[in-house]
Amino acid sequence: MTISPLAPAHFPELPEISGVTFAAAAAGVKHKNRVDVMLALLAPGTAMAGVFTRSATRSAPVLDCQSKLGHDHSGPAAILVNSGNSNAFTGGRGIESVKVLTSGVAAQTGVSEDRVFTASTGVIGEPLPHDRITAKIEELHTNQSGGAMEAAARAIMTTDTFAKGATKTIQVNGKTVKIAGIAKGSGMIAPDMATMLVYIFTDALIAQADLQALLSSLNAKTFNCITVDSDTSTSDSLMMAATGASGVDVTGNAEFANALSEVMHDLAHQVVRDGEGATKFVTVNVNGAKDDADAHRVALSIANSPLVKTAIAGEDANWGRVVMAVGKSGVAADRDRISIRFGDITVAENGWRAPSYSEDEASAYMKNQELEIGVDLGIGSGKSTVWTCDLTHGYITINADYRS
Amino acid sequence: MTISPLAPAHFPELPEISGVTFAAAAAGVKHKNRVDVMLALLAPGTAMAGVFTRSATRSAPVLDCQSKLGHDHSGPAAILVNSGNSNAFTGGRGIESVKVLTSGVAAQTGVSEDRVFTASTGVIGEPLPHDRITAKIEELHTNQSGGAMEAAARAIMTTDTFAKGATKTIQVNGKTVKIAGIAKGSGMIAPDMATMLVYIFTDALIAQADLQALLSSLNAKTFNCITVDSDTSTSDSLMMAATGASGVDVTGNAEFANALSEVMHDLAHQVVRDGEGATKFVTVNVNGAKDDADAHRVALSIANSPLVKTAIAGEDANWGRVVMAVGKSGVAADRDRISIRFGDITVAENGWRAPSYSEDEASAYMKNQELEIGVDLGIGSGKSTVWTCDLTHGYITINADYRS
Repeated sequence: MTISPLAPAHFPELPEISGVTFAAAAAGVKHKNRVDVMLALLAPGTAMAGVFTRSATRSAPVLDCQSKLGHDHSGPAAILVNSGNSNAFTGGRGIESVKVLTSGVAAQTGVSEDRVFTASTGVIGEPLPHDRITAKIEELHTNQSGGAMEAAARAIMTTDTFAKGATKTIQVNGKTVKIAGIAKGSGMIAPDMATMLVYIFTDALIAQADLQALLSSLNAKTFNCITVDSDTSTSDSLMMAATGASGVDVTGNAEFANALSEVMHDLAHQVVRDGEGATKFVTVNVNGAKDDADAHRVALSIANSPLVKTAIAGEDANWGRVVMAVGKSGVAADRDRISIRFGDITVAENGWRAPSYSEDEASAYMKNQELEIGVDLGIGSGKSTVWTCDLTHGYITINADYRS
Repeated sequence: MTISPLAPAHFPELPEISGVTFAAAAAGVKHKNRVDVMLALLAPGTAMAGVFTRSATRSAPVLDCQSKLGHDHSGPAAILVNSGNSNAFTGGRGIESVKVLTSGVAAQTGVSEDRVFTASTGVIGEPLPHDRITAKIEELHTNQSGGAMEAAARAIMTTDTFAKGATKTIQVNGKTVKIAGIAKGSGMIAPDMATMLVYIFTDALIAQADLQALLSSLNAKTFNCITVDSDTSTSDSLMMAATGASGVDVTGNAEFANALSEVMHDLAHQVVRDGEGATKFVTVNVNGAKDDADAHRVALSIANSPLVKTAIAGEDANWGRVVMAVGKSGVAADRDRISIRFGDITVAENGWRAPSYSEDEASAYMKNQELEIGVDLGIGSGKSTVWTCDLTHGYITINADYRS
C-alpha cells in the first residue's frame, strides 16, 4: 500500500504515560501474520470517558462500551481492540463475541469485566472469529509495556496507510502532565458523531464526569469537524483514559484543555491526511452565517460535495461548485452578499466573480497540497471550520474492491 | 465522449405536438460549431407550469421563470435554452443577460416578454456571452418545426452522453392526447429540488393552476427521487407546456396523470442512466419505515453513499455498507428488525446475515447492469423508491477536469 502523500514525515515519539501499558499481537482475524489486536491496561482508579457513533446500526462493542461508562471506579481497566472485522450487524452473536472477549480479558488480567472496553473495526456483517483473539490474550498480557503505544497504533489500522499518534506534555503548577493518543481512520469518515477509533491517554488526575464533559466538548470541534466521504462508521469510538499517576489535578485547567485540544486536532487532521485516495488536505472556513450551526452545515456541504472534491483533485479553481454547495446546503443565504476565497485569493464577492480575480493566480494556488476554501455569507457572525480531502481515482480503487 | 452503457438503444420517435415548434442552432456559447441553443414556440393560450431548484444560489434565468409563472394567459409563449454557460452567480449582469435574451426573443417572435422563459446550463460564475445567442434568434425563429424536438434535446446537453426524450399517447374520451418531453442531466444531480433541465409538451387542455399542481405532485415521485452525486444544480428547471390544441380537457383525468407520470419516470431514469461515469442502474426500495419521509431519507442515504456506490461499481455484494447507510441516516430504526435484499436475495434479516445467504449467489447478482437494493425497516408502513447509479473512475475523470 502506498503511503498517503499527506502523511507526516514520521510517527511521533510518544512518551510513556504512567499507569498505561500496551501490547499488540497477530491474531489472524482477517489476514494471517498481520498485527491486528492490541490490549491496553490502565492502572487502578483511571477515569475512563468516551464518545461514540450515533449510528442506529452501531456495533455490539460500541453498545457494550456505552453501557459501561459514566461513573468513577477505583479498579484497573482494559481496552482490547481488533482490526479486520467490525462485529457490527452481527445480531445476538455479536453481543456474545463481546462477552467472550471481555470475560477472557477479565479472567487473564484480573480487571473487572465491567471495566473491560472493546472495539472492533473492519468488515461489517461478518461474524467475529473471537476465538482467534482470545487465544492471544495471555500473550498480550505477558508482553505489556509502556513503550508499545506505537505498536498499538499499528494494530488497529485497516485501510490506513500510516499509523497515527500525537502527544503533548505540559507543566501544571510546576509538575509535568503528559497526553498521548493514537487513532485509526481513513474511509467511512464523516462528522456528526464520534468518528473512527481514537484512544487518548494521560497521567493527569480528573474525575470521570469532568473528563467526559471535556472530551465531548472538544470532540465537537475536532473529530466532528472532519469528513472524508460523508459516510459514518458503525464502530466509531473515541475513548480517553486519565490514570491520575502524575498526581496533578487538571479539573477546570485551561492549559490542559488546550493541550488536549491540540492532540485531538492533530489526530483528527491525521485521519483526513490518510483519507482514502487523498492527495490534498483542505480546510473549509465558513463565517458570516446566521449562527454556528448554519456555518457548519455550509462547511460540510462544501466538504462533502463530490463535485467540489473532484475539482480539487483536478487542481481546478472551479469556485462555481463552491457556490453550488452553498446553495444546496439549505441555510439562510443571500446570493449577493456571499464572498469566496481560495487561500488569500478572493474569487467571488457581491454575488459575482471578483473584479480582481485572476484565473491563472487561482489555478497556481490549486497546485498546493494544503488548500483553504473560505466562504463569508455576509449576514451574521456564525462560523465553522471543517477539514477534508479531495476525491480521487484512489478512493474508487480502494473502495470498489476493498472486500474482495 | 463514450455513450453511457446504460443508454437506451436509440432516441425515441417523438410525435409532433400540435401547438409546439422547435429549432436549434450553434451559437458558440462555449464551443464553436456545437449546437448549443434551442428555441421552442408555444401556441396562444398554452398553459405553462414549472418546478425549479430551491438552491439559495439559483441562477438568474430560474429566478426570472419563477417570477413569470402562476397564471393563465391567452398569448403565445417561448422557451429559450442554452448550454455551455449557466448564467448562475453572475450578479446583476446575469439578470441583464436574461433581459437581453427575453426581449430579443419577444422582439423577433412577437411573444410577450413576460411569456418568454429561459434556462442556461453549464459552467457557474462565468458571464454569459448573450450576444452570441441573440445573434441566432432570427435563425431560430425562421427554422421552427414541429419535428425538431430531438434537435432541441441535443442542443441542451452538457456532459450528457446521449439525448433524452420520452413520449406517451393516450385516448381520452375517444380523442388522442399526446405527451412528449426532453431532458438533460448527468452530473450535479440530486433530489429535494426540481432537478436538471426538463421540458414536457402536450396538446391536452388544462388550466395553468391544475397543470402546476399535477406537475409538482408528480415531480415529487420522479425527478425528486433520483440522485447521481448528491450535488444540486443552481439551474434546475422542469417546465411543462399544455397547448390545448387537441381540445381534450384532461383536468382531473387519471389516465392523463398516469401517462404524464410515465413520461416523467422515463426521463428521470434516463438522467440516472447517463449519470457521470455510471455503469449500473440501481433502484433503492425502502419500506417498513415509520413514515414515507423517513423511508425517503434512508433511501437517499443509501443512494448517496460513496461507499455503497463504489461497492456497486466493484460488483461487490458488500451489504455491510447498506447497513452503515441505514445507520447514519438518522431515522428511527431497530437494528434487529432490519432486513436487506439484493434483488430477490435476502442478505440480512433480524439484525444479522440471513441463514440462507450465499455470497456466491449475491456476487453473481451484482454483475447485473440493473440492480435493486431493498431495505425493510420492519417498524411501520412508510416507503420510498429512489434511483441512482454507481460511482466509478469515470465520474472522477469527468469531474476532475470538466472546466479545464
